[in-house]
Amino acid sequence: MTAFPLGRRERKKHDTRRMLRHAALTLAIEHGVEAVTVEQITDAADVSERTFFNHFERKEDALLPETEMVSAELREAILSRPADEPALETLRFAIGQSQLVRDAHLHRDRALARQRLIHDDPGLLARQLAQAHDFENSLVEVLAARRGTDPDDDLGAQLLAALFGGVVRIALRQWASDGGRLDDLIDRALTRLGAELDTPLL
Amino acid sequence: MTAFPLGRRERKKHDTRRMLRHAALTLAIEHGVEAVTVEQITDAADVSERTFFNHFERKEDALLPETEMVSAELREAILSRPADEPALETLRFAIGQSQLVRDAHLHRDRALARQRLIHDDPGLLARQLAQAHDFENSLVEVLAARRGTDPDDDLGAQLLAALFGGVVRIALRQWASDGGRLDDLIDRALTRLGAELDTPLL
Repeated sequence: MTAFPLGRRERKKHDTRRMLRHAALTLAIEHGVEAVTVEQITDAADVSERTFFNHFERKEDALLPETEMVSAELREAILSRPADEPALETLRFAIGQSQLVRDAHLHRDRALARQRLIHDDPGLLARQLAQAHDFENSLVEVLAARRGTDPDDDLGAQLLAALFGGVVRIALRQWASDGGRLDDLIDRALTRLGAELDTPLL
Repeated sequence: MTAFPLGRRERKKHDTRRMLRHAALTLAIEHGVEAVTVEQITDAADVSERTFFNHFERKEDALLPETEMVSAELREAILSRPADEPALETLRFAIGQSQLVRDAHLHRDRALARQRLIHDDPGLLARQLAQAHDFENSLVEVLAARRGTDPDDDLGAQLLAALFGGVVRIALRQWASDGGRLDDLIDRALTRLGAELDTPLL
């Protein structure tokens, strides 16, 4: 089965997924989310519909930002930081390094267009909320791993992940509506939350 | 059109919705979420399918806890508190009084069974996440109303609502898995979050 080392096969899968996301977003920006079909996406990416459904359950999923890599990167970044650093500081550092924020700068116009499509389409927003929920669960796991706790019992890790997830979600919404730099908006949201709670969070 | 005063018509609509929710939950507890059909629900509640779809977009929505009343109650409770009370204290007071928490005690077995069905069904969980998002938006509006700000520009209100929404979500999950009293779990989560952030939140 493995004519190529796994790293290369994984990389090819990743490239296919990226190409499909690229085609889906380009079409949705041009025609709107509703109008785009899976067939148009696979025609544009020159792959079969079967390939599409190997990577995505439905059209909407190809329009969401990639989170598989973001979660893996975050995990690595979080575990690289000193264990006694305050968790929010670690999370802020880790997200600032992540693909999500890098894309927000490198591919600003497309990333911003995508976030706006998401906020204008209730079905797509619902998928992003489910994705954010999975993302928070993966944050809980890595925070618990750092502390050596059981994620299911670590209420503190669950709460920090929800808090940070909320901050990112609100920063994304603000970014979609007003532009600016996503990492600055995340910093600003954390600072502002600290002010609301009467405590410095950074 | 109005043979009855609006209050009464609204009450009748509310009663129908409650009856449909009751039938849907009873059937789902007995047969599982997947197996239940809208037809079974409307047969059990002795109304037409058309009536069902006047109240709910899809089967899953009838299985979620009611939030229309909860939002209205919360609004009233929040606005009844002194404007200079810390927002989390106000929210904690308001949710403690709400139908959501009252039902968690008065109809404990059914409310707990529902929460467990939700956590075991990805489609249902996705609907609850979308509902939680709407709920947070309504919190933002009432927090902003209390402060006399524009909800779209009040980053502090958005963050507090997300924080509190996260606390309630985690308390609901913990309640579904371990039981206990929902209001105690919400209190405990807020206290624990304060400890994580090195600041008393209550």
